[in-house]
Amino acid sequence: ISHITWDAAAAEKGGYEHFMIKEIHEQPKAIRDTMTSRIALGEDVKLDNIEITKEDLEKINKVYIVACGTAYYAGVVGKYVIEKMAKISVETDVASEFRYRDPLIDENTLMIVVSQSGETADTLAALRLAKKSGARVMVITNVVGSTMAREADDVFYTWAGPEIAVASTKAYVTQMVALDILALHLARLKGTITKEEGEEFKKELLALPEKVEDALKHKEVIQKFASKNYHVKDMFFLGRGVDHAVALEGALKLKELSYIHAEAYAGGELKHGPIALIEDGTPVVVVATQEKIFDKMVSNIKEVTTRGAKVLAFATEGHEEIEKSVNSALYVQKTHPLLTPVVSIVPLQLFSYYMALEKGCDVDKPRNLAKSVTVE
Amino acid sequence: ISHITWDAAAAEKGGYEHFMIKEIHEQPKAIRDTMTSRIALGEDVKLDNIEITKEDLEKINKVYIVACGTAYYAGVVGKYVIEKMAKISVETDVASEFRYRDPLIDENTLMIVVSQSGETADTLAALRLAKKSGARVMVITNVVGSTMAREADDVFYTWAGPEIAVASTKAYVTQMVALDILALHLARLKGTITKEEGEEFKKELLALPEKVEDALKHKEVIQKFASKNYHVKDMFFLGRGVDHAVALEGALKLKELSYIHAEAYAGGELKHGPIALIEDGTPVVVVATQEKIFDKMVSNIKEVTTRGAKVLAFATEGHEEIEKSVNSALYVQKTHPLLTPVVSIVPLQLFSYYMALEKGCDVDKPRNLAKSVTVE
Repeated sequence: ISHITWDAAAAEKGGYEHFMIKEIHEQPKAIRDTMTSRIALGEDVKLDNIEITKEDLEKINKVYIVACGTAYYAGVVGKYVIEKMAKISVETDVASEFRYRDPLIDENTLMIVVSQSGETADTLAALRLAKKSGARVMVITNVVGSTMAREADDVFYTWAGPEIAVASTKAYVTQMVALDILALHLARLKGTITKEEGEEFKKELLALPEKVEDALKHKEVIQKFASKNYHVKDMFFLGRGVDHAVALEGALKLKELSYIHAEAYAGGELKHGPIALIEDGTPVVVVATQEKIFDKMVSNIKEVTTRGAKVLAFATEGHEEIEKSVNSALYVQKTHPLLTPVVSIVPLQLFSYYMALEKGCDVDKPRNLAKSVTVE
Repeated sequence: ISHITWDAAAAEKGGYEHFMIKEIHEQPKAIRDTMTSRIALGEDVKLDNIEITKEDLEKINKVYIVACGTAYYAGVVGKYVIEKMAKISVETDVASEFRYRDPLIDENTLMIVVSQSGETADTLAALRLAKKSGARVMVITNVVGSTMAREADDVFYTWAGPEIAVASTKAYVTQMVALDILALHLARLKGTITKEEGEEFKKELLALPEKVEDALKHKEVIQKFASKNYHVKDMFFLGRGVDHAVALEGALKLKELSYIHAEAYAGGELKHGPIALIEDGTPVVVVATQEKIFDKMVSNIKEVTTRGAKVLAFATEGHEEIEKSVNSALYVQKTHPLLTPVVSIVPLQLFSYYMALEKGCDVDKPRNLAKSVTVE
């Protein structure tokens, strides 16, 4: 077992203007630390505090991922990864909903709760409810010895280090990486992916810190789009599949930091209502990293630009043709389709940061918000 | 088998200013027609075109409800009702997401698609994908002989009659009633509720048309709140449990009709981000019909009013104490906790209608929207 301790000194801004931008830049290291000692090429996944066995797993017919806020959006990504890799049905739910809706849980349920602090009130209540109902409970948390870490059956520590800014960035990406590693572990235990597929996935995981590092470099496009649009009151974020999950988190960041009413939608739902709100000059952020549905996102872009929307698009390298349809575009490096959220969220975090700076908002301590919500 | 035919003459406005307000007022009849010949006290549920047997049901371990837009929000309610009554795990998904995410489906899956027209492109594609993967497919649709009705294994016709206004109202409530009747049917087949519980639920179902009739009467509070707030650009809708589902549909109606950026949130998620957007004068609609979590909603109301929000609350009769915390309140009659959405959506529909009228919007044909989305 490795322990990481921290203190106020270690948490200083270290040359950065705000904790948030410092923490955004610490993401390559946070991801690397979260993978270290757990995954290595040619070796099985090693998870110290997770003792679930092949036999335990055989009886699991349902996984819940339960969390609040940003951690919930990490869970939305986790559903895709675990279902695709380990072929178990996953339901991601908001903790405050889960705890009061009398969910179907029994001893064949695996409950994964996600909480940076390990103390979030609703998430803790959901954990206790699941335990009482006989489920096996796993926690993904950033704080050693937190209440959830003590009460769960299995613990996955994200080694993000102390996160001071109220809006979560590095804790969020490590929560996604934790779910990715967990999915790989469950899939290998169940035999739903081959050893070779596992090695390929690990290779992609291990390359993430570098790709995140690269994503941090392309700030100009984002700063420029922010400087032209920071005055707006409303924005929309679109994506499909895991890109929709990224859009949800990107919109939340903008809400938290710059008080702009940003809302995320699955691209295909546009025509079923929200397109009525697109008018001349409405900024729309589009996340389009998935090869399989890239053309569908281009159709969505056309639907909104026809109505006058100004589009900032995030795509993967090699899709520069998107520039023909949008106002600004930014590219991230290719990775495994299930891992793109870890890379594509980075420019979205930067976008919310620069929007808040332009507006003169208190980046590290947004109004009305607390770092950990430890009361209901 | 009963067939309902309609023609242009039958679809006239009949004294109402718009199709939408006419269709809102047709809801008691639409609900009654949808129940007629299917449920009666002392008798088993009779569903003509649904042939699923007790034996078929025994192997079903997962239900998907898949739809778009408003029909999707009917499905969000359906998840609560089917899980609670029939104790089967239900996942509600947006059709455009479902069809491209390679979902886990097999011959043990029951797929329920919901579509007013029976022709919605993404929903039809999801239906075909599920059939190809061996699932049993059931459709809830308003159009006899529609493509989905022809291709599904089981068909549940909502007898809402022709819906002309682009924004769905009476089709939506009958979709919920269809899911309620279906949940009752599945629960009785599986034996997860007793005959007495079934009778009690049926009694509450049969009383819905009268309660909806009553909900149509209380317009003054809504009109007054609308006349004071129609100029706003942004609004929030809050609820928990099935009230969250109602909040989602209420916000969509307002988006569609009056182009106000209305967004729904689960009450417990407020503190995890969106509360940063509440400022002096922000209108917030709160749906609080659930006894069990009424106090939690009152806490949420206090959180937003402290930041200056103006609250319009919808509660059940007997909860007049809510007036101490809000600006305006309106009460609907009590019913079974799972059936409240059918009643509580009505004042929300009226609210979006009066907001659009005040703004001078084209109620029956909102900009950018089509009645049926038959292309992807």
